[in-house]
Amino acid sequence: MNFYTRKWIKPEDLNPNGSLFGGTLLRWIDEEAVIYAIVQLGNPHVVTKYISEINFVSSAKQGDIIEMGIEAVSFGRTSLTMRCVVRNKITRKVILSIDKLVFVNLDTEGNPTPHNKSEITYAYSGIEKTTK
Amino acid sequence: MNFYTRKWIKPEDLNPNGSLFGGTLLRWIDEEAVIYAIVQLGNPHVVTKYISEINFVSSAKQGDIIEMGIEAVSFGRTSLTMRCVVRNKITRKVILSIDKLVFVNLDTEGNPTPHNKSEITYAYSGIEKTTK
Amino acid sequence: MNFYTRKWIKPEDLNPNGSLFGGTLLRWIDEEAVIYAIVQLGNPHVVTKYISEINFVSSAKQGDIIEMGIEAVSFGRTSLTMRCVVRNKITRKVILSIDKLVFVNLDTEGNPTPHNKSEITYAYSGIEKTTK
Amino acid sequence: MNFYTRKWIKPEDLNPNGSLFGGTLLRWIDEEAVIYAIVQLGNPHVVTKYISEINFVSSAKQGDIIEMGIEAVSFGRTSLTMRCVVRNKITRKVILSIDKLVFVNLDTEGNPTPHNKSEITYAYSGIEKTTK
Amino acid sequence: MNFYTRKWIKPEDLNPNGSLFGGTLLRWIDEEAVIYAIVQLGNPHVVTKYISEINFVSSAKQGDIIEMGIEAVSFGRTSLTMRCVVRNKITRKVILSIDKLVFVNLDTEGNPTPHNKSEITYAYSGIEKTTK
Amino acid sequence: MNFYTRKWIKPEDLNPNGSLFGGTLLRWIDEEAVIYAIVQLGNPHVVTKYISEINFVSSAKQGDIIEMGIEAVSFGRTSLTMRCVVRNKITRKVILSIDKLVFVNLDTEGNPTPHNKSEITYAYSGIEKTTK
Repeated sequence: MNFYTRKWIKPEDLNPNGSLFGGTLLRWIDEEAVIYAIVQLGNPHVVTKYISEINFVSSAKQGDIIEMGIEAVSFGRTSLTMRCVVRNKITRKVILSIDKLVFVNLDTEGNPTPHNKSEITYAYSGIEKTTK
Repeated sequence: MNFYTRKWIKPEDLNPNGSLFGGTLLRWIDEEAVIYAIVQLGNPHVVTKYISEINFVSSAKQGDIIEMGIEAVSFGRTSLTMRCVVRNKITRKVILSIDKLVFVNLDTEGNPTPHNKSEITYAYSGIEKTTK
Repeated sequence: MNFYTRKWIKPEDLNPNGSLFGGTLLRWIDEEAVIYAIVQLGNPHVVTKYISEINFVSSAKQGDIIEMGIEAVSFGRTSLTMRCVVRNKITRKVILSIDKLVFVNLDTEGNPTPHNKSEITYAYSGIEKTTK
Repeated sequence: MNFYTRKWIKPEDLNPNGSLFGGTLLRWIDEEAVIYAIVQLGNPHVVTKYISEINFVSSAKQGDIIEMGIEAVSFGRTSLTMRCVVRNKITRKVILSIDKLVFVNLDTEGNPTPHNKSEITYAYSGIEKTTK
Repeated sequence: MNFYTRKWIKPEDLNPNGSLFGGTLLRWIDEEAVIYAIVQLGNPHVVTKYISEINFVSSAKQGDIIEMGIEAVSFGRTSLTMRCVVRNKITRKVILSIDKLVFVNLDTEGNPTPHNKSEITYAYSGIEKTTK
Repeated sequence: MNFYTRKWIKPEDLNPNGSLFGGTLLRWIDEEAVIYAIVQLGNPHVVTKYISEINFVSSAKQGDIIEMGIEAVSFGRTSLTMRCVVRNKITRKVILSIDKLVFVNLDTEGNPTPHNKSEITYAYSGIEKTTK
């Protein structure tokens, strides 16, 4: 699994106890998963259908840098199933993991439609083949 | 189950497809569940530990009013398990439901500590006994 | 008066002195009043017309849970007048009260139009008749 | 009355009907009044105590530029009373006016304390004496 | 140069080190420059084209009041070049200055179009000729 | 140059003309650069000192996915110079590039202090050596 989007925990992201507000973290994960799904399916009309159980393993505090990893697990006819890990960028300690995030591919009317994809596209990577 | 907090879906809450952004909804639910847990356990130091699978049943669009219901399902020694339903306030159509949201009661050091509660407290209700 | 929407005061809601920013509280009240008006009038096109004097009785600080109560006071031909109380959910101490918030019912052109309502509709309540 | 802070109405500021959300406007006014009070009283510890009735005269829509004017009306022993006008920067059409916003000067304990001011200080102006 | 829009640094504006987040400041400056350009060019369709080097001279902390000054430097055929200074409102200490912010005047198709302006319009000022 | 953090352009990110608000983009870039600097220098106390000229090459619209790339250009004694490219994730079209973002390494007092680094650390990558 590769990790792309990272966040710097600022005061606006905290709960009153001074740690990262769980709801804010869920919001970030949903955006990252949507982006992954759109890129893999080549279609901007995708929608969150199902998220499997979420274990909050550890917390994050002000000033921490966290990174989010998403990876396709399986391709259905109209759906895409991904898994997610969020971890501290420096310590690599896992903050949260989710086994299944299922997104559905929609047509312009908003109805599920086949995406005709069956494997991970390289396009999601942000890594240039010849990096400096 | 009773429903308290409601939201009016504004442009700032939308995804680019024009419906309520799923991540924003999850953020609202987490706040509502924390509030319920704090009031029931009488302790401001509670933390999200586990959220069971989430089914996104239907969507919400700009201008919709939605309401969130939380209800205690069981009281552990140091934890509280709740369930959640979000629905359209006008049509009563369910948008999302979650069977289990588990929060843990912490001491001031951040360690799990018994909460000594075993049933729902009336304090969570916002309903006056004699309403006008 | 019944209280529905509640908020958990987070760092993002504070003024630099560490208490709830008054402007943020006014934003929350306006949303709660709009929701009440839309539900009572059965029309999504309503607009804030007048707010009577506001007394900031006490403050709220980080971690506090507050709840907002709105109640119809009178029904005009095209308007609805409500009153509002915001209080600390735990201590019940009043934070702010407003005697009159007047909203006007609009047609799709944005002009005032009669709403044909003269009493409070049960629909605003989030309380199920038979709660578990 | 002079007008300083201006805002450009963006999608994030709109209500679902596509005009400026009233609550957002109230939030902006409260911040502008606090700034005026802090500068006039020379003390960062001031708090909103009272706002007189608010008339929403006209609306603002996406892309509009609005400007806010605040002016001291009277100086009490521990308080400062201001008035406020918000208008469209281009058309000069009034959007909202408030006759009295009363702020109280606090000591570091949060108690009202005399501010020893009785007239408007030039410091609030952002205008250089010799403008280019 | 005159200074109009001012901001009160709140917790939501801070970086994890407790000072004003640079990115938030850049966002405020861009909005202020857009407003200046729209008013001067009399056209709501303007777009940021170029920003010259930015020196972060000093910082701002929670509770500080800052003010932003924008001034036209030169008028091109389809562009407007401005300069910007941000400073602490009380101490007048400069926080940041930018020599050139270039905005382009667009037609309704989004293409550059002549603005036919060659000098500063009084309209940007928020100062009434006869102030109370 | 590698690209890590990506964003999905939502209504909350738009200017009134319906394209990505430039100020919001600058805010995202500043956060991404800070994260890069913190990871490379192994120190959470870094501050933006200088940003070289910014060319807004093309725009982004609602629903676009953009990605941001940051790369160290040179290591000073107490500073780190980076360059930045933002592009559309799907079309690879460049939206904006910045040649130099200079951050300074601070001690806990907030004074510049040597960082003792002279080359790029692998730690910034979010790519696992053996990816699935």
